[in-house]
Amino acid sequence: MVDYPDYLQLDRLLSAQAPESDKLGAPARDELLFIIIHQTYELWFKQILHELDLVENTFSGDQMDDAFLSDAVHGLGRVVEILKVLVSQVDILETMTPLDFLDFRDLLVPASGFQSFQWRLIETRLGLRPEDRIAFDGQPFEKKLRLDEQTILLNLAKEASLLDRIDAWLARTPFLVMEDYDFAEAYRKAVAAMFDNERAIVQNNKSLTDEDKQRQHAAFDASEETLTQILDVHAAENGWRFSAKALRSALFINLYRDEPAAHLPFQLLSLLMDIDELMAAWRHRHALLVQRMIGAKVGTGGSSGHGYLAETATRYRIFGDLFALTTYLIPRSALPPLPTTVQSAMRYQYSAK
Amino acid sequence: MVDYPDYLQLDRLLSAQAPESDKLGAPARDELLFIIIHQTYELWFKQILHELDLVENTFSGDQMDDAFLSDAVHGLGRVVEILKVLVSQVDILETMTPLDFLDFRDLLVPASGFQSFQWRLIETRLGLRPEDRIAFDGQPFEKKLRLDEQTILLNLAKEASLLDRIDAWLARTPFLVMEDYDFAEAYRKAVAAMFDNERAIVQNNKSLTDEDKQRQHAAFDASEETLTQILDVHAAENGWRFSAKALRSALFINLYRDEPAAHLPFQLLSLLMDIDELMAAWRHRHALLVQRMIGAKVGTGGSSGHGYLAETATRYRIFGDLFALTTYLIPRSALPPLPTTVQSAMRYQYSAK
Amino acid sequence: MVDYPDYLQLDRLLSAQAPESDKLGAPARDELLFIIIHQTYELWFKQILHELDLVENTFSGDQMDDAFLSDAVHGLGRVVEILKVLVSQVDILETMTPLDFLDFRDLLVPASGFQSFQWRLIETRLGLRPEDRIAFDGQPFEKKLRLDEQTILLNLAKEASLLDRIDAWLARTPFLVMEDYDFAEAYRKAVAAMFDNERAIVQNNKSLTDEDKQRQHAAFDASEETLTQILDVHAAENGWRFSAKALRSALFINLYRDEPAAHLPFQLLSLLMDIDELMAAWRHRHALLVQRMIGAKVGTGGSSGHGYLAETATRYRIFGDLFALTTYLIPRSALPPLPTTVQSAMRYQYSAK
Amino acid sequence: MVDYPDYLQLDRLLSAQAPESDKLGAPARDELLFIIIHQTYELWFKQILHELDLVENTFSGDQMDDAFLSDAVHGLGRVVEILKVLVSQVDILETMTPLDFLDFRDLLVPASGFQSFQWRLIETRLGLRPEDRIAFDGQPFEKKLRLDEQTILLNLAKEASLLDRIDAWLARTPFLVMEDYDFAEAYRKAVAAMFDNERAIVQNNKSLTDEDKQRQHAAFDASEETLTQILDVHAAENGWRFSAKALRSALFINLYRDEPAAHLPFQLLSLLMDIDELMAAWRHRHALLVQRMIGAKVGTGGSSGHGYLAETATRYRIFGDLFALTTYLIPRSALPPLPTTVQSAMRYQYSAK
Repeated sequence: MVDYPDYLQLDRLLSAQAPESDKLGAPARDELLFIIIHQTYELWFKQILHELDLVENTFSGDQMDDAFLSDAVHGLGRVVEILKVLVSQVDILETMTPLDFLDFRDLLVPASGFQSFQWRLIETRLGLRPEDRIAFDGQPFEKKLRLDEQTILLNLAKEASLLDRIDAWLARTPFLVMEDYDFAEAYRKAVAAMFDNERAIVQNNKSLTDEDKQRQHAAFDASEETLTQILDVHAAENGWRFSAKALRSALFINLYRDEPAAHLPFQLLSLLMDIDELMAAWRHRHALLVQRMIGAKVGTGGSSGHGYLAETATRYRIFGDLFALTTYLIPRSALPPLPTTVQSAMRYQYSAK
Repeated sequence: MVDYPDYLQLDRLLSAQAPESDKLGAPARDELLFIIIHQTYELWFKQILHELDLVENTFSGDQMDDAFLSDAVHGLGRVVEILKVLVSQVDILETMTPLDFLDFRDLLVPASGFQSFQWRLIETRLGLRPEDRIAFDGQPFEKKLRLDEQTILLNLAKEASLLDRIDAWLARTPFLVMEDYDFAEAYRKAVAAMFDNERAIVQNNKSLTDEDKQRQHAAFDASEETLTQILDVHAAENGWRFSAKALRSALFINLYRDEPAAHLPFQLLSLLMDIDELMAAWRHRHALLVQRMIGAKVGTGGSSGHGYLAETATRYRIFGDLFALTTYLIPRSALPPLPTTVQSAMRYQYSAK
Repeated sequence: MVDYPDYLQLDRLLSAQAPESDKLGAPARDELLFIIIHQTYELWFKQILHELDLVENTFSGDQMDDAFLSDAVHGLGRVVEILKVLVSQVDILETMTPLDFLDFRDLLVPASGFQSFQWRLIETRLGLRPEDRIAFDGQPFEKKLRLDEQTILLNLAKEASLLDRIDAWLARTPFLVMEDYDFAEAYRKAVAAMFDNERAIVQNNKSLTDEDKQRQHAAFDASEETLTQILDVHAAENGWRFSAKALRSALFINLYRDEPAAHLPFQLLSLLMDIDELMAAWRHRHALLVQRMIGAKVGTGGSSGHGYLAETATRYRIFGDLFALTTYLIPRSALPPLPTTVQSAMRYQYSAK
Repeated sequence: MVDYPDYLQLDRLLSAQAPESDKLGAPARDELLFIIIHQTYELWFKQILHELDLVENTFSGDQMDDAFLSDAVHGLGRVVEILKVLVSQVDILETMTPLDFLDFRDLLVPASGFQSFQWRLIETRLGLRPEDRIAFDGQPFEKKLRLDEQTILLNLAKEASLLDRIDAWLARTPFLVMEDYDFAEAYRKAVAAMFDNERAIVQNNKSLTDEDKQRQHAAFDASEETLTQILDVHAAENGWRFSAKALRSALFINLYRDEPAAHLPFQLLSLLMDIDELMAAWRHRHALLVQRMIGAKVGTGGSSGHGYLAETATRYRIFGDLFALTTYLIPRSALPPLPTTVQSAMRYQYSAK
């Protein structure tokens, strides 16, 4: 038996804004905005963490059937929608001008957005490792956090991240080796045939000079070598994070995504890339905002400003392996059809009785 | 061997804007914008029609396996993204003020956005029937179109729309009647149990007066009667467009959407509702724009303005049946589990070897 | 000396979510989402009310120079950005399916989104009057609120709304009557000339039948009569809410918006229409969401569902007068130039020394 | 006398899509999408160039009064809305998967999005110089264009860009030196006072160690030196593109933006930064898309892929000076009030008669 204000605890929620400038008796027009937008960010972060709880659970068992996979796709799809709002919500903060920010900026020292513990949790649980992070002001990034938060975060980094769980799940994918079928072998043959074809296209391209052709041929040779290497890659080699077996499965899923049993897995892998892209977009917008709002000055927490953020936007890629996999795709026209045994294992006929 | 400008036919494309006000030697600042935004709308309409071609093909056969369903979901998902851009793109047109529009508005008489043949094609192919349309200026809507366009459209309305194809496909859904299982019967029992439970909740709600409780009980009684009617509905009865069999399948898919075999069908039904919503949103924004831009004056084609558009936004719902189905859902806690036979027919185990 | 978590009161904020389903020991997957999205809505409502405080202050004095007007434009511009996020944020809630909602919907009875006191405050302070509101379940809308909230709201409705303040400010606009200038007279003459011109255009339109022409001529006659009536309109006549004097000023500002002194006032009037549009868009999306989520069933607070919301989306227009003014615009080509005295009163030369 | 299809030249427009894969008799599902989205981009580029025509005209004279400034603000505001759609429209292209792209990618060689002449025109007319551009494949970027396009572009680069025009207009700003007022001197004094105050804040911050304080004091000393340097900056020194006089005016406008005469100039400067941000956002999304779609392979025109685009997103900043100016802002509390003479020159009283 609840009513709306009690259910949402509005008394608590709407009294949790205490601008520092008010305390000093010189209320700054936009400090409330600054507080409220950060509070909405933190509320959404809590929701993202809640979705990650559920998604991680899905992947915790040894076995996972598609009934649960659908739930994971659902949860990650929601995370994507939340991240879109987080990015577009920057439009509101941009109505605050640098001069408005100056009215209360100094009062916040040394508080800083870098101290969002929940955001660090999200990054870590997805799979960003301490060693992936860029040092900040010459210190490990976590030094900005409270001591207990640092401990939690460093411990968490030792546990299985979503990336690790996805890796294990991918490695378990059936279908790649069946009676009369070996995906690795089929792929190797198809790659060879495809590059022969690509070379012919360039060769016949009359608008290219001989020099151009030579350059492109050299590129094809290099690419072919790279492509076949994907089958023999060793974990952690050349910067790969996924295991060789997981990479091969992910490649299989991308190539045969039209088969019913690959559809949800394909959606899942796409969502992971969406999440990476949107987190990058958020960091990028954030960097531009900071540049506009603070210029070359130090940030509220002593941060050296937008350059750091811009660098994280470019370098913090958790599921970069999935982006990189695109290199190894081969076009449908060159794609060998699956043998009937594999195909029927991947379908249920949805036919009329 | 193409280069970018030839490939995109930019010569043709970028010379296809001829403002009427230029011809009169009094160029209106915003007429180019007016032309270009409508041209981008028409280009996107062409793409939507292309996607509908592919989706319709998918549903044309007697049988459809999930390999094709995935393609239909993909195509409709793209239509959704296009419609989102069409809606948000109105922001650009709103930078034109009513006074700017007046500079060339009279030159366009009697041309009118109501004459977009492609938009009418989209509506018709999705399933909007001539009889669903609201007469305009006392005339059937199609009178605004060219004669050959009228003929094509009226003929098209006699063919199977996407709604008809979906209806046939839904009616073919297996799983609802199997050896030891009859969905209709299971549903009827579950509904009875659920309403008994809801009545108890209201009865124990101390914050409600007796009068309140009586009112809600009456509502529950009415709802229960409605709910069980879904099983016996006759086609075209009470305004339903789907057949009884298709409705029952759609209900089954909604209730058991977590089962692998129901996942893609559930996504498909959701996308159809998204399309309906976005088309309504587009009409709604369009109506507000016309109200702001034209006021009570007649539109460029003699239209009576925003009122007509606002009415179409509210009344033109193609997949209204799917929205209405929500009424017949029962909560998971009251949902009878599927017998093992049905469940295994709807899954493939995605297990490690 | 604050740190980030203290400054944002994260302890309080992030512990203010208590799902009812958790209390019953049967946690519903999506109840946290339901709580958090409503909490972000309420936080943004608080920010909107804060901006309205500042904007109202601006308009409270007898006199207002442009230094303050710029601040009002800034504040309303921010409200517009917030409303855009509120609308697009519905995308997140739509990731909850009707079945997910059913998992906890009954636990919320009789709480309802209709009980958002802050939203009612926003509507009332902007200028929505009790008599504009649509009765709900046969009761005045405010009965859903707590008693003290009802009192505050009804008292607030007796005070000057933003619309009232804008009305008084508009009525004070100088420039319309100066030595050798009377806007009303100049407008009347220009309207007559313009319609003579429009009639000629139709007359010469060879693609129109005589019948078409007669119909359009009749429409022009009616429009001309309406147009000249704007000058003599009496307050509250024909449903106008602004006073005759304010309406005339708003018309002047729209027609001569390119003059420097009219630029900010024009931006202000545009923003008020944007706010009306976005509130309508929010109600419209909300109505579609409720239709999809609840179907024909009663809402969580006993509401009769989406129909009520759809009706408010169409009928609740606060600044409808400004939309209606578009009818009275005359094109630049027919617009009489301002005499030099008025023009120089409205400009400062921004010239090099 | 036009009708809708003729007015929009739909016959031409809708027949200008000729997929290469169709010509080969093996239609690729998504090639039409690829063509159409690029065509809408090019149409919008044409509209942006049209707005730039008008905006440039505004700034071409020796003198500019605010009546024209309002028009420039309007045009740039529209460019911002168009760029927003260009960015969000990438969502549509992302529904094409890498595998779908592979179906026709090789047929496009050597066509490439880098060959958009209109986009290069936009960049150049805004103020991106040949020397700002990053070489591509070891060649000047323009080598990808047709010969006549290269010539036009290189000639254009020698003419006054929008940045140059804005520079000249800024330099003409009155108000900075009047009878009893010298902005430079007033600013220098205020900066000194402000940093004394900032030093005190750090000094009293008990949560900082002495080392922290020393580091921040050193930063303040450096900042103060930088701040006063803005007054003596020489053109092209330290990478500034605006002249010293223009920079000083832009600073003045930012600091006193609440004065009526500074309001439109402030909006203008903000829009230029918005444009820079959105062009960066577009390049950033484009880079992510290319990374996902092409991986490490060469682009359709032989481009080395996303790395190049990501670098342009970070480095191509045309109005970077305006972002950098934020560094030189001083808070309102430290801002010296304008003397009455300057203030009245910047206002017109908008008072009741």
